[in-house]
Amino acid sequence: MNGAEALLRTLLDAGVEVCFTNPGTSEMHFVAALDRVPGMRCVLGLFEGVVTGAADGYARIARKPAATLLHLGPGLGNGLANLHNARKGEVAMLNVVGDHATWHLQYDTPLTSDVAGVAAPMSHWVHSSSSSEEVAEDAARGLAVALSAPGQVATLILPANVSWSETASGPAPLPLPVPPAPVDTTAVDAAAQALSAGEPAMILLGGHVSDRQLELAGKIAARTGCRLAVDTFPARIARGAGHAACEKIPYLAEFALDHLKNVRRMVLVGTRPPASFFAYPGLPGEMAHPDCATTLLASPADDREDALWRLADALGALATEPQRDVFSPPALPETGPNTTATVADTVAALLPEGAIVADEGITCGMEVFGRVAQARAHEWIVETGGSIGWGLPAATGAAVAAPDRKVVCLEGDGSAMYTIQALWTMAREKLDVTVVLFANRDYAILQLEFQRVGASGMGERARNMMHIGNPDIDFVALAGSMGVPAERAEDAAAFSRAFAAAMAERGPRLIEVTMGSLLPR
Amino acid sequence: MNGAEALLRTLLDAGVEVCFTNPGTSEMHFVAALDRVPGMRCVLGLFEGVVTGAADGYARIARKPAATLLHLGPGLGNGLANLHNARKGEVAMLNVVGDHATWHLQYDTPLTSDVAGVAAPMSHWVHSSSSSEEVAEDAARGLAVALSAPGQVATLILPANVSWSETASGPAPLPLPVPPAPVDTTAVDAAAQALSAGEPAMILLGGHVSDRQLELAGKIAARTGCRLAVDTFPARIARGAGHAACEKIPYLAEFALDHLKNVRRMVLVGTRPPASFFAYPGLPGEMAHPDCATTLLASPADDREDALWRLADALGALATEPQRDVFSPPALPETGPNTTATVADTVAALLPEGAIVADEGITCGMEVFGRVAQARAHEWIVETGGSIGWGLPAATGAAVAAPDRKVVCLEGDGSAMYTIQALWTMAREKLDVTVVLFANRDYAILQLEFQRVGASGMGERARNMMHIGNPDIDFVALAGSMGVPAERAEDAAAFSRAFAAAMAERGPRLIEVTMGSLLPR
Repeated sequence: MNGAEALLRTLLDAGVEVCFTNPGTSEMHFVAALDRVPGMRCVLGLFEGVVTGAADGYARIARKPAATLLHLGPGLGNGLANLHNARKGEVAMLNVVGDHATWHLQYDTPLTSDVAGVAAPMSHWVHSSSSSEEVAEDAARGLAVALSAPGQVATLILPANVSWSETASGPAPLPLPVPPAPVDTTAVDAAAQALSAGEPAMILLGGHVSDRQLELAGKIAARTGCRLAVDTFPARIARGAGHAACEKIPYLAEFALDHLKNVRRMVLVGTRPPASFFAYPGLPGEMAHPDCATTLLASPADDREDALWRLADALGALATEPQRDVFSPPALPETGPNTTATVADTVAALLPEGAIVADEGITCGMEVFGRVAQARAHEWIVETGGSIGWGLPAATGAAVAAPDRKVVCLEGDGSAMYTIQALWTMAREKLDVTVVLFANRDYAILQLEFQRVGASGMGERARNMMHIGNPDIDFVALAGSMGVPAERAEDAAAFSRAFAAAMAERGPRLIEVTMGSLLPR
Repeated sequence: MNGAEALLRTLLDAGVEVCFTNPGTSEMHFVAALDRVPGMRCVLGLFEGVVTGAADGYARIARKPAATLLHLGPGLGNGLANLHNARKGEVAMLNVVGDHATWHLQYDTPLTSDVAGVAAPMSHWVHSSSSSEEVAEDAARGLAVALSAPGQVATLILPANVSWSETASGPAPLPLPVPPAPVDTTAVDAAAQALSAGEPAMILLGGHVSDRQLELAGKIAARTGCRLAVDTFPARIARGAGHAACEKIPYLAEFALDHLKNVRRMVLVGTRPPASFFAYPGLPGEMAHPDCATTLLASPADDREDALWRLADALGALATEPQRDVFSPPALPETGPNTTATVADTVAALLPEGAIVADEGITCGMEVFGRVAQARAHEWIVETGGSIGWGLPAATGAAVAAPDRKVVCLEGDGSAMYTIQALWTMAREKLDVTVVLFANRDYAILQLEFQRVGASGMGERARNMMHIGNPDIDFVALAGSMGVPAERAEDAAAFSRAFAAAMAERGPRLIEVTMGSLLPR
């Protein structure tokens, strides 16, 4: 067998069964191997940001890595923004990036670039395979890195000749990934002490919040009376009926400061002390009150479930019942324009049991997370690195991971346009994704941030850089052009009808939701 | 004034008058400065690959740099693929990339990344400005690097606080860019000797081929009887009636080897010895015959016009008349399906005087360059780094640079989808671009390359990774959704009619050209 086949068999033997791809010439032997070695589902993206974002969404839901197949430095470059989100989101991923044959690099032909240099900023591990005899072992090592706690991004560079040369070695077994580390007893004791100090306290969860983490933290909160919160951008959290109730740290620094102003003890689980997303003149970076003492129970690479169990045990909370979300659907709006509240109510009322929500609603989606505490039980994923263009691809990958569940993508119109090609993959793969496309025709978040960073006098030129109308994008036609049925909902009642219909049927669809502008036009 | 304004004034004072942008929060003070300081035309792209590709197309046609405004590491990442093309294409460009306030980096918030690390692989110069007092001088230095021969990519990282802090320094003057270096007399003598040796010889031009370079090389070719050729992917070359006739090295290695098999002396001007684009098992990397001696007259950073003038003088060719292209329009096809030849004939017959062709036609466009030797005089630009997704953005930038000239973009359907958002910018800016969209529903180049790299047995899975139908993309609806009028041309006569109409009117439009498949479906 050749190097490509040894690599492919290594991935399959290790349980990797989906590869998101946008291949080029240097990857053709990997592509050819797909027909010789059964078992790998390959999902084509028309742009690499779709590929890496889909691998991210897949990994968050499947709790196992997907591979990606990318074409040299520029192809990897196109995928970097969503690798950034994955790197910040504890996502396990193995990128296979083709390169020229090793002896061909000397000619510095047009597509030659520093592939490892491109990979480095967004990868925990980068390696360029130097022979077909070693590639299987290299891939196994990379995959072990990806699977190591808490989930990492590994990038394997695959020169064309390594791919096409014969090897006697065959596939390689997976080395043991680094498991989550148990925390020191002192960390558990310190957290228990913080929560027993009689001061207003909070447990703050972040990253991939497993159901067990949430349940244990809910028990501790109920037992000690502390508040339970999650980061603004968790990699994943369960929400809705039956799950422990959990606040979220607001995005806007002013609101976050207010939200946390009474907290004097904060126990961190898989996260860092809350900080404002951007710096603002005159506002602090740390969002906790200066008198708030923080205690790290577990870092992302630690065994958070075990740490929370031990903390619950220490506090006598294991038998305590958490405060739980309850299904209490808001009334569906029957009149009036779409607002962030009417959309949130509709989603909360109609989201089916077990749905997955991929949230990139930005300003228009801000109210939804709070409201879906009243929804049926579901999972929530959000872009963890703040790099927009994640929502549509992540929803695509989540739907590949969970073909029997409804995926709802909350998506801003501005954000959607970075990786709009994901719609085509949804159509090709007949994925059960409903895209709620908030069409306010603005980068509204920038209008909000403009004044918050102390800029003044928004004139016509500045306004023009934040307005994405002129011309308005027709998302119904755009989705249709890529095979995704779509409709426009111009008021709240129309959105309720359209969303209800989307929840009742299977397959990809898009609802363009007409939203008002933050600023007068 | 603040740092952002000092930076903006520095760019304007140096003659930079267009900025392609996709800003975020950290760039808001730069955006705010646009309304206080008149003179900078800002062109918004909905995706950063559009921004960097447009800056590339602009610089090639305007022969001066544009600035870009990008948002942190991920935004820069999205622009890397077209920065790669720019870096390979002698393109002068200054990227201004926002970053968090310097003191905010310690919090490692979601959007924090190694911006300089992302920039490095595709930039000749990277610098992070550390204070508002220094930013103007930093920008001037970066711009001088961009303007240094032969044109370079410079990236200035602009932390938010550097942007918003006051400065007493004001704008900074431009240091002297490094001019093209005169070549040694020995290089001219060696080239003269090579062309006078009585052996079959060729002058090979590359990079940005100025009209004067082409004219002088044409004189030398006519005087000495040598062949005159240009690289497969030149940054820019003039073509059509009145310009010196010039061959192009074929893309396919087998054809390139055949094309060059009789050449025994090759004089290189602004390029390297021809090498195959990818490595192929059993084919050499060097395309020149093993018995061909190559002589470097001038490297890209050298003064190529001066070197060619001196060479022409040494050979007594200054008064020689080159062999020139002549306008001899092919007959317009009246019947039959669209083929690469019918499209080439139509374009050659109808291209208006002074048009600019941005070529990313890939397999479908291969015949056009040969045919447009018979067209009216025009300029030709092509993606120089082989990174697809360049055509639509580059056409956008070229149209901004030359508002009075027709821009024709030859674009493959697969390539178009990487940066399809460029259509929106064309519509917003009312740019005079006609997109000839070759719809063969395949990554046909990969079908071609699959067998050439020695892969065998293209089964259904491999085929599926190269076929971008299922569903077919409706490019007419897609263009319309972004405000670009479009029509479909299903046969050669329909394309002729549509292209003639497009040449007669102004404004953006797209013609989806139905093409056959390379392989049976």
